[in-house]
Order: sequence, then C-alpha cells, then structure tokens
Amino acid sequence: MTTDFGDGPFAGLMKGVIWGLTPEARIVDLTHKVPPQDVRAGALVLEQALKVFARGTVHLAVIDPGVGSARRPICAKALDMYFVGPDNGLFTAAFSRDPKCEVRLLENSVFFREEVSNTFHGRDIFAPVAAHLAGGADFKDLGPVVTDPVMLEWPRPSQKDARLTGCILSQDSFGNLTSNLDQDTVQVFLKGRTALVSMAGLVLRGISKSYSDTSPGGIIALFNSAGYLELAANRGNLRRKLGLDKAKLFGLPVSISAFNSKH
Amino acid sequence: MTTDFGDGPFAGLMKGVIWGLTPEARIVDLTHKVPPQDVRAGALVLEQALKVFARGTVHLAVIDPGVGSARRPICAKALDMYFVGPDNGLFTAAFSRDPKCEVRLLENSVFFREEVSNTFHGRDIFAPVAAHLAGGADFKDLGPVVTDPVMLEWPRPSQKDARLTGCILSQDSFGNLTSNLDQDTVQVFLKGRTALVSMAGLVLRGISKSYSDTSPGGIIALFNSAGYLELAANRGNLRRKLGLDKAKLFGLPVSISAFNSKH
Amino acid sequence: MTTDFGDGPFAGLMKGVIWGLTPEARIVDLTHKVPPQDVRAGALVLEQALKVFARGTVHLAVIDPGVGSARRPICAKALDMYFVGPDNGLFTAAFSRDPKCEVRLLENSVFFREEVSNTFHGRDIFAPVAAHLAGGADFKDLGPVVTDPVMLEWPRPSQKDARLTGCILSQDSFGNLTSNLDQDTVQVFLKGRTALVSMAGLVLRGISKSYSDTSPGGIIALFNSAGYLELAANRGNLRRKLGLDKAKLFGLPVSISAFNSKH
Repeated sequence: MTTDFGDGPFAGLMKGVIWGLTPEARIVDLTHKVPPQDVRAGALVLEQALKVFARGTVHLAVIDPGVGSARRPICAKALDMYFVGPDNGLFTAAFSRDPKCEVRLLENSVFFREEVSNTFHGRDIFAPVAAHLAGGADFKDLGPVVTDPVMLEWPRPSQKDARLTGCILSQDSFGNLTSNLDQDTVQVFLKGRTALVSMAGLVLRGISKSYSDTSPGGIIALFNSAGYLELAANRGNLRRKLGLDKAKLFGLPVSISAFNSKH
Repeated sequence: MTTDFGDGPFAGLMKGVIWGLTPEARIVDLTHKVPPQDVRAGALVLEQALKVFARGTVHLAVIDPGVGSARRPICAKALDMYFVGPDNGLFTAAFSRDPKCEVRLLENSVFFREEVSNTFHGRDIFAPVAAHLAGGADFKDLGPVVTDPVMLEWPRPSQKDARLTGCILSQDSFGNLTSNLDQDTVQVFLKGRTALVSMAGLVLRGISKSYSDTSPGGIIALFNSAGYLELAANRGNLRRKLGLDKAKLFGLPVSISAFNSKH
Repeated sequence: MTTDFGDGPFAGLMKGVIWGLTPEARIVDLTHKVPPQDVRAGALVLEQALKVFARGTVHLAVIDPGVGSARRPICAKALDMYFVGPDNGLFTAAFSRDPKCEVRLLENSVFFREEVSNTFHGRDIFAPVAAHLAGGADFKDLGPVVTDPVMLEWPRPSQKDARLTGCILSQDSFGNLTSNLDQDTVQVFLKGRTALVSMAGLVLRGISKSYSDTSPGGIIALFNSAGYLELAANRGNLRRKLGLDKAKLFGLPVSISAFNSKH
C-alpha cells in the first residue's frame, strides 16, 4: 500500500476491507506519507518497490486527487506484479519498464464494495479489487483493456558538450537528495574518468562508495540503494544544511563533468 | 487497534503481547495518532470502522487518560464485533447502534499479563484480553455484566423554523471538515429542494457529488465516504484555507436552509 | 523492527524482502521514528521490548549511521531471542542481561540479497538475515563468533551521602520523562521512607501509584510500565510544561532523598 492518507484511519479502513475478503493476504505499508495529492512523489516511491517485492505482489496505490471525476480506475499487470489505483500516472515506472505491460479498466463491479462512494475509491474500489487479485481472481475479469494509460513526463538526463545534466527528484527522511542520474548512464559518460558533481553551488570531486567515505558532516555524492546518484551529508541532513526549500527540490539541476585524475 | 500512542513503541509492544498469545491474529492499525487523551476523537475514528470490518473483529482501543484510576476496563459485544478498552465513552457509537449490546467488566485476571502495571493497561490488560478473544475465548468468561457503560454526549442535528443545524465533528488529513449532518436527515429535510449550506461565513449552494465537481481550489459541500456532510476544498486544505484553529473545530455550527431551484 | 527510517518507504521495502523469503513471518513495527542516527534512543526502545516479545522473536534494528564503513554487521542470540543489526551498541541492554549472549558476524553472504549496496544494509543484509532466521536458519551458519561487540556506556544511578542520583534517559509521546532509576534500586534506597524527588527545580513528595493520583495538570513521580521512575503531568505534557528542550533531556539529573513520614 502506498497512499497520501497520512495519520488518519483511511489506510486502516482499507485493510479492514482487504482482510474481510482475503484473510490470508499479507499487507505491507510502503508509506502513507506521500505529500497530499502529489502523484509524482507517489510514482517515485513505487519505482523503488519494483526490484524488491516478489512476483505476484499486488501494489495498491491511492494518491487520487481526481477521485469521483472522470479519471479511470485501473489495474496494470507488469513485471509479474499487479498495480491497482487511479489512472493518473502513478504507475509510470512499471509501465515504461515492461513492454508487455497490460492495463485493464476497473469496470466489473462484482469486485467492488456493494456501495461505492464518490470520495473514497480506495476503500470501495481499489482495496476490494486488490484483495480479490491477492485471493486469486483473474486479471482478465476486471474489465476491458486500456490502451492509453496516463504516463507522467519523467525528466531524463541529457548530455551536451562535456557535461551530463540531470536533476533532483526527491529527498529521503534523512535529508539525502536523489537525482535522476542512474549509475549506468553516469559510468558510460565517465569512461573511467573522475567526476566533478555540481549542484546548487556545491562542487564535489569524485563519487564515493558510502556515506562514511567522508568525515561526519562532510558532503558526498554516491550511488544510493536504488542505483541513482544521491548527494548526502555524512551523519547529517543535507537539505537542511543547504537551506533548500522542500517544495523547490524537484527539478534542481545536478551536472557532472569529467577529468582524468593522475594516479 | 486505535490509540493515541503516536510514534513511540507502545503500539508495537502491544502487538508483541497479542502475537505471543494468538499468533494467528491479523492486526490492523486503524490509527495511533488520535490526539493525546482525546476520547471523543477516538470515538469518531471507531465509528468509521463499524461498517468496514468483518463480523468477529476485535476492536482494541486505548485512549485512556484515566489509566490506573477507578475507571473500569471493559469489553463490549455489539454489532457482532468486540470492543476492548477503558470505559470512558470510546465505544459510544457501537453502543448506541446495537440495542442488544452487552458489556462486561474485565475482571478475570486469567486473561491479563502476569504483572499489571498502573500506567499501561493497553499492554497488560487490553491487549491480552483482545488476543484471547481473537483466539476464541468466551466473552462471558471475561467478567460480570456492566449495565451502565459511559456514553459520550453526542451533538445531534436540530431543526428550527426552516433551518437544519449541526456542527463540525472533525477534520481528516486533507483538511476536509466533517459534520454530524447525516445524509438521511439532510435529505428528509430538503425534500428535493436545493440546499444552502452555511459555515464560518461561507455560503455554498447545492450539495456536490464529488470533490471534482468544482475547479481546483473551489469549496464544496458533499456527503463523504462515511455518509456525513463534509466541507472541502478541491485539491486543497479547507481548514488551512479558512484559517481555522484545529482546537476550535469541534462544535463549529453548520446549517442548511432550502429553496426550490428552477429547472 | 526498530529503525530511524521515519515516514518514507524504507521500512516497507525491508518487509518486501522479508516476506519474499519467509512469507509466514509476522512483522511488528516497534517504531520507525527513532531520531535519525540516534543509536542510544534506539537502544532504549529495544530495552523495553525485552520483556514483552515471545521467545524466538527476531529483533531487526537499523539505526546505522556507519553503514558502508568498517562497522560490523552482527546477529546476537540473547534471552532466547535474536538481534540483527549493526554492531554499534544498539543491543547493549540484551547483551548486558544475558551472560550466555552469543554474537556472530554476518559474513555468510548466502543469507544476503544478491546485490549488496553500500547505503542500505537494512534491505540487503539485515532484513534477509532476519527473514532466514525467522524461517529456521541456523544461527551458527551466519558467520564466526564476535567476542567484543560494541557496548554503549549506560549512565547508572549513584548514591552519595543520603542522596540517590540518576538522570533522564528519554521522553515518551505524551511528554512523560523516564529516568534510569529502577524500582529495585529506589526501594532499597528508601527502606520504606518517603521520597523527595528533585529534577530541574521541581521537588515532588512521594512516589505515586498512577497518573490519576493527582488532579489534572498536577505533576507526579511514579514507576512506569518499564519499571523506571518517570516524571509526568496528569493528562498533560510535562516536557512542554517545563519548557525543556528535547535535545537536552538526556542526562538531566534526577535525585532522590528520603525522610520518615509520620503516620
């Protein structure tokens, strides 16, 4: 489960629905603290889950500012997992990584709660559909195929002259800043040379292996556990240290140039 | 589980006790962020759970400012579910909806932890009792019948002249404001006429079907997923928008008058 | 699970790993809100769990400022439970209470995820090791014995002249302040006399049985559910009431003198 429901009972109510239908389901809270109605932040969380959860996992994600409007409720089958939620781009990462991805409209109300509200499809549509899938329901019975699911535009790294440029996508709870520069792209660019990483006036020499490659408080760039270039302060909070506004993090440019270091 | 334990380990310690006794129990966190010692807020959360959880569910609720005093520990059987916690009004909604509701004093210490502290009955009395019930213990063995459980006074809508008046009970994590005006009462009052909803200087015409019936930022009234009239800002936080103090929300008047709209 | 991961998806990702390996595991979140990188606060949380969880429980704790450095990943077997995490003192309480405690270095990578990052051993080493243990793996197969695990220095009560002096260790989510003065030590000191408890300018006469031994807002000292002397405001937040800074709580002196009260 990934939602923006915060501290209230909504996520727990959805679990009540799920276990009422499929008592043997195991439920993981990925997070319920996606910033309210921030679909992109939810999509970033779900991307991290793609490599970690087992085949057959049902991802139930409700960041749904358009609930009750014409936005479609969908389920996707991709990467041998299911993704249930609103059709607003939450599942962009899974869609773009699996060419065989298949999306269905949630139309068959036999999988819904008896009464469907206009304000809480998480409880009335998405949770029961996810529960039925976890209990063995057939994906094809959910509804007709959707051929044009909503995809978010995802900022991609670009290379110009001798510089590779990406941007910050998010921060984690320690104040570490994650970019869209993935390890493969960066290493192809570097060709064994040493990186100079620039962001918000900082210039860092080299890419470290771990947080503790610098002294406490020192700032480093490293590839994080999701495989993306991250900037971090060892044992500190880099975002706060730099005085960066949370709301302005997304899109902040990060660029890399390269030089041959002498051995 | 519904508690005011917040971020600390207390809720987790209770789960340790429960699974030590009944390993096959499934545990849902409804919320642990009820405002500290706010029994009425806890009662409102539990009311939402009544329609969602399956028969046989054990609701374990610990908002317990009177722990260690003469307040009684109880278990109620109502609506085919169990409710375990302090006798302070937390279960008012269930009691008032089930005329056959039966309440027992938790007196039989065979269902308690061996040592009972004066400060954490959640861990030492309520969690083990809930675990034993979930594991099949007989409700009648818990202790003698209680005939006068504490009930909260619940504000009810009232009608005077051509106006139906209720009040705000709570807000959710999106800043939507929920009143005590339930859909049945409002519709009987309206008799097909159009509503004018007034609160805190706002006047809204008509009751909407969903948040997206207005443009982003627009303010609407609608019946929420629990069946109560709610005031909300589409894709925004209404409480913050109106500058309303959290502590002063409860009891804020909401009134409805009606007129015949021309077609 | 006890971590400092806060609201993000890291704890959920670890559960994905655990259930991928051992689907029958039951997982309790003790707390994920240990203050970032505060090993001592994590150790205090784990101490509370020692008496509550069943034999065979695997405690998975990740407060790990040294991830990726030379700090060792370990598993301890103590008090008939397992403790998996970094070797930085998190498990001090268990180590010091069980003279037969045995510690192993996590060296056998057959129990790890296939790829081990330098920044998220929680997901790549500790979670899979804990899952394998919960699923029946043999403790001895994890790696060689460690004879010198890191222990935190723990402040102990001291007695001088007619005064017993300890200090505040932590606060709970209600603003109650917990000291290191345990019930046994205090009662041996008092020998039936009445206590005068002093802290931060407060002087309290006597040790109460429960919060409600004083009127709402009144301040008392009592032994809490973990068996330690706690200072609390009945139905209030003592820390806030005294204007104490969270960061300066740890180590604040609490002392007790005794006198013979007349009956």
